[in-house]
Amino acid sequence: MAEPAGISSLTLNRLSVYLRCLRQLQDSDVTHVSSSQLAQQFELSAALIRKDLAQFGEFGIRGTGYRVDDLVESLIKVLGLDRAHNLAVVGLGSLGSALARYLSINDKPFRIVAAFDVDGRKVGHKIGHLTIHHSREIREIIPQTGAQIAVLSVPESAAQRCYDDLADCGIKAVLNFAPVQLKQAPSVRTKSVDFQINLEELAYFLSS
Amino acid sequence: MAEPAGISSLTLNRLSVYLRCLRQLQDSDVTHVSSSQLAQQFELSAALIRKDLAQFGEFGIRGTGYRVDDLVESLIKVLGLDRAHNLAVVGLGSLGSALARYLSINDKPFRIVAAFDVDGRKVGHKIGHLTIHHSREIREIIPQTGAQIAVLSVPESAAQRCYDDLADCGIKAVLNFAPVQLKQAPSVRTKSVDFQINLEELAYFLSS
Repeated sequence: MAEPAGISSLTLNRLSVYLRCLRQLQDSDVTHVSSSQLAQQFELSAALIRKDLAQFGEFGIRGTGYRVDDLVESLIKVLGLDRAHNLAVVGLGSLGSALARYLSINDKPFRIVAAFDVDGRKVGHKIGHLTIHHSREIREIIPQTGAQIAVLSVPESAAQRCYDDLADCGIKAVLNFAPVQLKQAPSVRTKSVDFQINLEELAYFLSS
Repeated sequence: MAEPAGISSLTLNRLSVYLRCLRQLQDSDVTHVSSSQLAQQFELSAALIRKDLAQFGEFGIRGTGYRVDDLVESLIKVLGLDRAHNLAVVGLGSLGSALARYLSINDKPFRIVAAFDVDGRKVGHKIGHLTIHHSREIREIIPQTGAQIAVLSVPESAAQRCYDDLADCGIKAVLNFAPVQLKQAPSVRTKSVDFQINLEELAYFLSS
């Protein structure tokens, strides 16, 4: 399958959505689906589905549509989900712990291999099968674990310091939950998830 | 202040970021800031800052910049954060509870007025000062609370049913954390926060 360089973030996010929808169809033993069925069932755009999938050399068969299993396999490959991704979680407050638990249950390609916190009541204890290390050990521990992605769920005041440590010891991607503007390292793909900004957007639409 | 109709989601999100940055400056007793100082300190675009703020009739003074307090006040008004927003939280698993706790500490304009779960060990008990109701009571309870926004943090299998109940009883905006494609109600502004899709995007960039 040809993988064009530079797929946009928006396209990638749509591919993830298609993958999720197709997996639901697999669970219901659906073997074939057309772009218009997919669009209708999941409230997506049929034209966008066809355009997005054609980029990857996937063409539905007229009257039959796509073979669900094949399309799932293709999308998994395009998204790089056919191999394990080692993750570090930094900050095990209620959000970090919830994320760690969520990931350990749900996301097979994502495997948590390191966990950090600064709380003396947590450091040295376990989360799942992992020993929690002090955040000051990030630079020392991360290279031993093969983690390439870090989930950053620390308070605002600690976020930049932890981020810099992660960037320095070879982390290549950070999913940031701290509500701050991080000064980003050029070597690190950084993505922020910000509840507050999302809520403020909703508040605007309620007020206007 | 003139508020142009139809500010885009992206612009709104930038305004939220400016507001956050300006509040940091307030905390450091900075009274004036230019667009280029703001841009440099927080790694934003000076040109975008000027363009975004000019839309709201805010013009920096040459050589002095913006008055920080005035700009904070303007942004709070534009974003509709000068009044309280009543929130319901549906789903008090680890993520929902973490969000509820986060919101009750951090986000003054957002006030949690109702909480729902299906777990018999939680229903009837309190989270903060609120009694947790059974999710089947959403339609009955929500209208009594004045909640207009709901945070949906239930498992996939329950998400659509809860969403429909929320839409039916007058909720105007939903921030959804369940990893599903919701069939959206036209009357409800819906915004999804999806860790899995964000992680998959990062995985793609590591693989390519």
